[in-house]
Formats: sequence, structure tokens, C-alpha cells
Amino acid sequence: MAKFLTNRDESYAQWYNDLVIKAGLAENSAVRGCMVIKPHGYAIWEKIQSELDRMFKETGHVNAYFPLFIPKSFFSREAAHVEGFAKECAVVTHYRLKNNPDGKGIVVDPDAKLEEELIIRPTSETIIWNTYRDWIQSYRDLPVMINQWANVVRWEMRTRLFLRTAEFLWQEGHTAHATSDEAIAETKLIIDLYASFAEDFMAIPVIKGRKTESERFAGALDTFAIEAMMQDGKALQAGTSHFLGQNFAKAFDVRFADKSGKLDHVWATSWGVSTRLIGALIMSHADNNGLVLPPKLAPLQVVIIPIYKGNDGAGLMKPVATNICERLRKKGISVKYDDRDTQKPGWKFADYELKGIPVRIAIGPRDIENNTVEVARRDTLEKVTINVDSVDEYIPSLLEDIQKNIYNRALKFREENTYYTDDWDEFTDIIENRGGFVMAHFDGTRETEEEIKNRTKATVRCIPLDSPDEKGKCILTGKPSERRVLFARAY
Amino acid sequence: MAKFLTNRDESYAQWYNDLVIKAGLAENSAVRGCMVIKPHGYAIWEKIQSELDRMFKETGHVNAYFPLFIPKSFFSREAAHVEGFAKECAVVTHYRLKNNPDGKGIVVDPDAKLEEELIIRPTSETIIWNTYRDWIQSYRDLPVMINQWANVVRWEMRTRLFLRTAEFLWQEGHTAHATSDEAIAETKLIIDLYASFAEDFMAIPVIKGRKTESERFAGALDTFAIEAMMQDGKALQAGTSHFLGQNFAKAFDVRFADKSGKLDHVWATSWGVSTRLIGALIMSHADNNGLVLPPKLAPLQVVIIPIYKGNDGAGLMKPVATNICERLRKKGISVKYDDRDTQKPGWKFADYELKGIPVRIAIGPRDIENNTVEVARRDTLEKVTINVDSVDEYIPSLLEDIQKNIYNRALKFREENTYYTDDWDEFTDIIENRGGFVMAHFDGTRETEEEIKNRTKATVRCIPLDSPDEKGKCILTGKPSERRVLFARAY
Repeated sequence: MAKFLTNRDESYAQWYNDLVIKAGLAENSAVRGCMVIKPHGYAIWEKIQSELDRMFKETGHVNAYFPLFIPKSFFSREAAHVEGFAKECAVVTHYRLKNNPDGKGIVVDPDAKLEEELIIRPTSETIIWNTYRDWIQSYRDLPVMINQWANVVRWEMRTRLFLRTAEFLWQEGHTAHATSDEAIAETKLIIDLYASFAEDFMAIPVIKGRKTESERFAGALDTFAIEAMMQDGKALQAGTSHFLGQNFAKAFDVRFADKSGKLDHVWATSWGVSTRLIGALIMSHADNNGLVLPPKLAPLQVVIIPIYKGNDGAGLMKPVATNICERLRKKGISVKYDDRDTQKPGWKFADYELKGIPVRIAIGPRDIENNTVEVARRDTLEKVTINVDSVDEYIPSLLEDIQKNIYNRALKFREENTYYTDDWDEFTDIIENRGGFVMAHFDGTRETEEEIKNRTKATVRCIPLDSPDEKGKCILTGKPSERRVLFARAY
Repeated sequence: MAKFLTNRDESYAQWYNDLVIKAGLAENSAVRGCMVIKPHGYAIWEKIQSELDRMFKETGHVNAYFPLFIPKSFFSREAAHVEGFAKECAVVTHYRLKNNPDGKGIVVDPDAKLEEELIIRPTSETIIWNTYRDWIQSYRDLPVMINQWANVVRWEMRTRLFLRTAEFLWQEGHTAHATSDEAIAETKLIIDLYASFAEDFMAIPVIKGRKTESERFAGALDTFAIEAMMQDGKALQAGTSHFLGQNFAKAFDVRFADKSGKLDHVWATSWGVSTRLIGALIMSHADNNGLVLPPKLAPLQVVIIPIYKGNDGAGLMKPVATNICERLRKKGISVKYDDRDTQKPGWKFADYELKGIPVRIAIGPRDIENNTVEVARRDTLEKVTINVDSVDEYIPSLLEDIQKNIYNRALKFREENTYYTDDWDEFTDIIENRGGFVMAHFDGTRETEEEIKNRTKATVRCIPLDSPDEKGKCILTGKPSERRVLFARAY
């Protein structure tokens, strides 16, 4: 199977695309820019959803569902938001089709034109804040802490599976608070939650930071993001959390009476992660043999494959395999015994490698004689033979070890590819030739950021929260700077 | 709170609408026909999803996700399907907005017209079977057993919260098989699964049956449905499972080679349930005080409310309440201690009644003295005082009892309102004046069904699978009939 993947060093982009398709994660659909998320890809998304959903609920959030459609006029209410979101989007203009009076097929019925066009939500701030107006009157109604799992549409011209598609799946949190402080605390709570999720579950080290003005969410006063380094040295924004101030409350007139009866506009946040995370997962851990899944997000953690010749071979392995399955399931591990006779063991080995299943157990006739099994770990491809009796000790600790190892490997890679420079020529050399993150001084202006982007295709990914105060001079203009920021080319 | 609900006997429709809104289940949105599913309503949907999803997976199904958009031409491929689905739907014609050159706001950019219009999926057979063509070549690729959780849009003219909305949430299963027998077995497996779910979890007794030709899914050879009786005697179709034959495989040219290499078209099924189930839940069990939730689907099963005067009252109850919470959680029961001081106990009692929480535990100062609590069950509104020590025995068995009781109550109601008649006048009298299900003979023709519908607004809900062979004469035409069918007015 592995031979079907383009080598990662030959073309990273082609390797990525091959892998997404061959590992059964997703594929392009008949609709331009929209993907089909295939069962294996969707199962990973379900694991992501389930962990995040638990974390949201543990921090006091509840789920709800708002309409797919947003009246066109809603976008014009918030000045910055309309510029950012109301341009490349899918517009519903009619609500009926009819048989073609001139012949075959069906046509749009011109009599069924909507009075006001409807936009397929590219994000839901406007429809949600229009709804919150009726929900919030008093401080007693606050905070409102709602999350939504939904599909959204942004009409992208150049699309890539998981990374940038016209339709994608995501969660969007929208909270309402009585004070600015409380809303800022929520914004930070969520970026911390996203960072924990990325590191503890996805095994992806991330840098938490603030966005610059030009990279900020359209309508936000402040945007926090987590940024991860992909294997080609480019950055990927894996989650964002926005402090919206009173902008949307003012645009949709959402006010509350405080304890003294005084009316004020409500303070807002919004935050989201999307199916893009699956792209991050691939580009953080996968190799030339295929996907490498962190055990905590693997839909299947262990696969057992019998190795035999002739007809009754698999029967010999079955009692041992069944016993191992039972013992591992008791430990909360998901495991499958694959004794299909339509495929050979070698094909199965390659297929599970391609799909990134963390641990493979092979059982052959000699193993039965010796009461052993062969255990292969996906991250390093190492194999060991162990006694069957030690399986329920060995496998859980191996899964933990894989989870840690791929995190550490990704962290080491990021550290090795993160540079500090105060020299423009070195800066451009790193960006152009080596790739990776560059921590450099920056004067903080929109113009400088634009100019750096035009010259190098690198942008300020974020102002890291842990970037220490350090006086310096802007890498481009030489103007004074208070701290280093993170530059990189990005997905 | 209860006073805000219209009395059920006064206007069933108004009672229903009041309840949906006051219990925080859903409300109408700014977009015509689209609802906002509020947190309490969505939490019930999450419980429904989680149980069904488990049942689908246990029977070998996996989840995936297909595009929201369907190219217009896809609908014309299957002749019956286009008639049924491609008419009242949301049509995307443009992909960009721009600033209004004549002044304020934004307008559709006429330069961004799509070459082919896109339809928001009303159901996904066409886009999915167009995809399956690439996935299925050989018998080794079969069966394909995929489910999708998604939003769909049907441009309904008259909408009602949960029961009929332009956008709704649902699951749609789409399976592909090598033989007709296998596809028929799948169709039946799913209708049995839906019936078990309705009866065991929703506590709603259902009648499984076949649809007549005129009520069949557009493109199906056979449609099975489960039908439930609502408290006003009307029927509600709670789930459908369709045997699609080779219709979609032929329309999208999906063929497979069998073991001998012979090519044949693939056999298909599709099946779904939607947020409509929440409407069924309300209209099966709720009363003039509000919702009555079956414990197995209640997002919160037990609420504990302290009763006190003055400031330090709640502190007195807290240790007892916390202890009960811990003990119940160990039994897998979801429980909340509501000691908010912003609302009075009476308000809380009414609010949890309105929201349908199965069990309420109240603790007052006298209870603390006597080591007792007061337990109220939502289904009968009965209260008993029990010893604190017996809580972890009493509550689990009470929850089981409530689950059974509301099922039995609904079953008894259905039995009392199901009639057998061979007389047309009695038939019309029941339909017009008494309401309920009528088991009557029917000649099986489209024309007769249409005529009965025109005269009485009743339709054949289904031909029950357990309807015995019994020769008789059609209730309208007197022509021969082989068995009774189920007539009713329906939602």
C-alpha cells in the first residue's frame, strides 16, 4: 500500500493529498471545494468532538443549534464583520425548482425568488446575537455559555482537503457576559482549553498567542490563537478564541439590567476549531507509510492479525486473539481481531499502517506454540515478541508511551526549527530556504506586516503569551519593539 | 410557570407551541421556517443521538459526512425522486456578495453566478450514490453501511416547531448490498431498531408497517415506518426505512463484479429519523404542567432543591444534598443540586416540572431533623417522604418505574383510541369526532386512498406488519381486501 504514497521529501503537498485519500480519510466531491469525509476520517472527528465536548461541558458550556441561513442584512450590522465574512459565501436566492418548460430536467422557478437573500452561515455571530437579544434582559440571564456543532460554508477559491474547503465542520462557541473582565477570562479559558486538547490528545505542541490587528477575527477586539508547526516547517492555526467586546451586542442591541437596574450592552466572546484539526494531525505525525494516530484519538487502538497458510489456520489463532481482545477491552482499549480471509496478512499490515492504528499484534503458528505474540508500534515501526500473559500490562503502557513519544518528537522538531534572529538577510534565508518559525522583533504596524508578507510570504502568526519583555529593533524597519513575535509561512 | 401554558383541552396546538417555547426546547428564528433549538431541547437531541448512534454501530454501521450541496442535475437522474424532492428546496445561485454600488449595505454580485445551481440537500441519496460509484467495484467492497448525522432543508410553507421546519437535524443511513435479500433484511433490521428505540428509550409504543404506494419514499420500492399515536389521537410517523431496489444504482451507474466476475447493479436502502422525534416525545407524554421526559432520555434525571428561609438555610441542606448527589452518581444517575438564591423554591419546582425532569427531591429543615427527603415523581406528580438512607435504593427503581409507567400509559391510551370498523359512517364519525386509529379494510388502490383522504383527511398510515390475514371489503368501495390497514389523521 505504502508505495501508493508520494514520498514526503519529494512533494509534501502531494504526499499529504495521497495520504488523505489512500488512508480513507476524505476525498473531493462532485461539488467544487466540498469534501466527502470518509468513515475513517469521520471516526477521528468523532473522537475529537467527544473529548472537546466533554471539556466544554466540564467548564459550564451547553450545546444548542441555530439556523444554517442568515438574512443578508444581518451582515451589514457590524461594520468590520461584513468586510471579513459577507463576501465569498453561498447565497440562496430561490426556494423552488420546476420542470423545465422547454424540455428535459428542472430549472429554478423565477416566481420563487426570496424577498431577501439568505447566506449560508460562514460563522454565526450575527444570527446568534440577533437571538440573544430576546434571551438576555437581566444580569440573572448571564452568563450565556453556548456552543454549537455545525457545518459552515466559505466560498474558497483554492481548496485542500481538511485544510481549506468550501464547506467544513466545526464547533463555534458564543458566550455573553456582564463584564469585560469576565468575557476576557472566558476568551483565555478557551484558548487554554484548546491548547490542552492539542497537546494532551492530539500530541501536538502549540504556541498560544495574540493575533496582530490584521490577522484578527473580523469584529473582534482581541484574538487568541494556538499555532502548531507542521513537518514542512509551516505554521497551522489550530484554534482561535475571540474577545468581541460589545461590538455584536451594540450591532444587535443586546442590553441587560444590572443589579441596580442600570442598562448596559453585553460583553461577548466567540471561539472555534474545525475539521482542519485533522489536517494538523496528519502533518504533525504521519510518515511515508501513512498516518500515525495518537492513541487517545485513534478510533481503533489495537488490531490483531492472524498469520497462517491453508484453510484452518485462522481457527488456531482465534481463541488466543479472542482472549486478548477481552482482556484489553477490560482495560478500556479498543481492539479488533481482523481474520478476514479476503485479504492477505501483508496487505492488512500495510493497510493498518496507512490508517495509523497505533499498535498491531500479529499471531502466527510459532507464537501459538511459544505462547507469544509479535507487537509492532506504528510510531517507530519497532517490533517485539512478548509473552501472551503480559499483554494486558504491556499494551496499555505501550499506548501511553506512543502518545508521549509522538508529542516529544513533534516538540523536538519544532525546537530544532525555531530560530531567533535580528538580521533581515538571515530572516529571509530561514523563511525561504530552511522553513520553520522565526522569533523576531516587529514594530507592530499593519504596514510593516504587509511589507514582510509581500517580500517573504511570512506573516506574524502570533505574539506568544510567554514571549518575554525584551527591547529590540524591528527586523524590517529598525523601529523600536518591546518583544519578539512569531513569524512563519502558514497554511 | 404552569399558568403560562394554554390548557391542553382548550387548544392542543397552542398548548404544544407554548410548551416548546416555555420549556426552553426551541423557538422560531429570524429566518422563516427555521427554528433555534435551545439548550434543553438540544440536550434531549444529544441523548437521542447517542443511543441511536450506539445502536447503529452495534449493528455494523459507520458514520461519514457528505456535502450539504447537491448539483441540480443530480435530482433529474432518478425519475420518481425528482418529483418528490426537487421542488420545494433552497437553491444557491451565487457565491459572492459585494458592497452596494448605489449606497448602503451589500448586494449579490451578478458576476458570481454559478454555472449550475446547487440545492441544499433535502435528503442525500443522489450525492451519496454518485460517490458510491467510485467506492464500489467488487463484491469485496460490499456491503457499505454508512450513516450520516446532518442538517437538511425542505422549503415547507406551513411550519411547526420540531414537527415540520424548513431546516431540521436528522440521521440518514445509506447502505449498499450485493443482493436484494440482503438489502431487504437491512431495511427490516433498521425498522426493528427504530421500534426498539422508540419503545425502550422514548417510551412510545409504535406500530411497524409498510407504507402504501402513495405514501412511499420517492424512489423506493418499499417503505417501512413506525407510527405512534399522539395525545390528540393523531398519528405521527416517527421513522422510516426504505428498500430502494436498484433504482439509485442504475441512476448513478453503481455496479459490482460478483465472485464469478459478473457485473450487476448494487441494491440499496436508506433510512432516517429526525428532530421530529422531540415533537413525538412531547405529544406522547407531556401534560398541562409541561414536559414529561422518559428517564432514559432525560438530560437531567434528578434535581435536588433546598427549602429554607433566611440566609444560612441552604448551608444546612448542602451536606445532605452533596451526599445524595455522590451516591446517585455512583449508580449512573445524573443529578443536580440547585441552590441558586436568585429564585424561590416554588419557582424552581414549577420550572423543573415544565422541563420534565423525572424526579425532584426537596429537603427542608424538618427533613434534616428527621433524616428524610421529599421525593416527587414528574409523571404522576405523586410525592412521598423517604429516609435519606434509602435514597440509593429508592431512586433508581423509581426511575425505572417512571420509564415503564409512561410507556404503559401511552400504550393504554393508544389501545383505548384504536377502533375496528367495517362501516363507512362509523369510520367517518371516529375520524371526525373521536380521533384515533381506525383499523379498516381497504382495496389497496391509489384512487381509493385519495378519495378517503379528500373526504376525511385521514390516510393509510401503514399496513401493520402484524395485521393478520382477514378477508373483508374495502371501507369505501366494498371491493375485496386481504387485511385491515391503519387509518388516521396525521402530523
